[in-house]
Amino acid sequence: MATGATWRLSVSPSSFTRLSLSLRTKRRQFPHHTACTVRSEVSLSVGVRLIPHPRKVETGGEDAFFVSGENGVLAVADGVSGWAERNVNPALFSRQLMSHASNFFTDEEVNCDPQVLLRKSHEATTSVGSATVLFAMLEKNGTLKIANVGDCGLRIIRKGQVIFTTCPQEHYFDCPYQISSESNGQTYEDATVCSIKLKEQDIIVMGSDGLFDNVFDREILSEISNFQDMTEAAKGLAELASNHSRDFYFDSPFSAEARTRGFDVKWWEKLLGKKLTGGKLDDITVIVAQVVKASTEQF
Amino acid sequence: MATGATWRLSVSPSSFTRLSLSLRTKRRQFPHHTACTVRSEVSLSVGVRLIPHPRKVETGGEDAFFVSGENGVLAVADGVSGWAERNVNPALFSRQLMSHASNFFTDEEVNCDPQVLLRKSHEATTSVGSATVLFAMLEKNGTLKIANVGDCGLRIIRKGQVIFTTCPQEHYFDCPYQISSESNGQTYEDATVCSIKLKEQDIIVMGSDGLFDNVFDREILSEISNFQDMTEAAKGLAELASNHSRDFYFDSPFSAEARTRGFDVKWWEKLLGKKLTGGKLDDITVIVAQVVKASTEQF
Repeated sequence: MATGATWRLSVSPSSFTRLSLSLRTKRRQFPHHTACTVRSEVSLSVGVRLIPHPRKVETGGEDAFFVSGENGVLAVADGVSGWAERNVNPALFSRQLMSHASNFFTDEEVNCDPQVLLRKSHEATTSVGSATVLFAMLEKNGTLKIANVGDCGLRIIRKGQVIFTTCPQEHYFDCPYQISSESNGQTYEDATVCSIKLKEQDIIVMGSDGLFDNVFDREILSEISNFQDMTEAAKGLAELASNHSRDFYFDSPFSAEARTRGFDVKWWEKLLGKKLTGGKLDDITVIVAQVVKASTEQF
Repeated sequence: MATGATWRLSVSPSSFTRLSLSLRTKRRQFPHHTACTVRSEVSLSVGVRLIPHPRKVETGGEDAFFVSGENGVLAVADGVSGWAERNVNPALFSRQLMSHASNFFTDEEVNCDPQVLLRKSHEATTSVGSATVLFAMLEKNGTLKIANVGDCGLRIIRKGQVIFTTCPQEHYFDCPYQISSESNGQTYEDATVCSIKLKEQDIIVMGSDGLFDNVFDREILSEISNFQDMTEAAKGLAELASNHSRDFYFDSPFSAEARTRGFDVKWWEKLLGKKLTGGKLDDITVIVAQVVKASTEQF
């Protein structure tokens, strides 16, 4: 890309100068159509990969998901593992939530509102337990609507950049907001509810914290760029997260965050130049979806 | 807060266990009202502080802003300094954008759509130049609508946590997307357009990159917690950013990001244990706004 200024890099970032693009011809008038980024109806091409915690392979882990590409619905729930200490299977609650979501998403009352879908799915649960949950629903005009409780995550990638991210909500470090069978848990009213206008070719990367605790956003961008097929992309990202989760020496997003919260190796180990590192063993769910023009048969 | 599990911290984060909240009484039914988080009309209590680049104090710098708390409109533009090398005053374009925004925001055509406000404001500019721009408009029902081009930023703080953040868009490091007088610049169609449902007491922290390049989100949370008054909060944050920007030894968000992009001290300095540090000297605009119940006179 041509640039209109010479960029001089010095050691002190204080001397960086913001760059303008080069001059060409003038243009200041734009077509006065409605400022909608997607004019045709859209749907999603979706790939999913779930890799359970290494010690939970036989039971399939405690993450659960539901996706419907043609209907533009993506959902992930991460059962809170602490329930196992009370002899409760943490997978039951997250799986029930996703099962109800798959039943309710076409309800007239839901009307493409993920917060309503979350309320209805939660109300219908009968299991004891709790889960972090993220629901995303794509309107036909290209607006992705999101309801998020806890530390599942979602990124939007456009032209090789992360242009949108959800933020985790937590009570304190490693104790996220959670939809629960109990009265002291969170409900749909505690969800962060937001939306973003998508364009064709935008990529949604969504998953449980097993992905985002083990893979930095810059790695997600790099990995995603290797694939055209969403199933292969989800598989690639999940395997990257899994590899990092089992690496005691990888300086993961989770270990970096732990250090900023004051958790680290013992003081004498610090004197030896050591620091807290390592991935986080966890169930890993990865959903990768690309916005595509819907075929007329799909809607 | 009571917790339902003992949390054992070990050196390896791989052994962390996600925590569930304690059990109390069961409840699974919620009131079936519409899932709108703000039921009364709302407006914003706003504070602003602009601290120009130390070498641009006499001219006031190249940032510009426009706010209207009772109408729920927040806008910031950051004139791209590279234009000075072409004998163009970089402040003219950003100030014109903001001036037009203040004229157009009540237009029927805008209808609380920041992307339309951006188009109209841009179309009306006559100056040569370019700027990063962020427009935020609060609907009376509490939905904050955002149109963002470049690396101005916005955070939503709820109950002491950052629950929402914008993401910068760039051509390459330190060359952000920019609304421009030239045809190779960006337009309203390149904006990231998103929205978030706000609740009363939520705090919006918005500003030019002079804030976010010099102050980490965790510092924003800490600083904001010291103030009840939004004007004082904006002043406190701007002064914190200004102090960091002049500190060659502060490991700022900007220097940390520069290192991840491969910019650092020379190899022999690295051998001596040095690394690229320092804040980024820049114009600093900080807008802090709290969602409050609107008086009946305001709407």
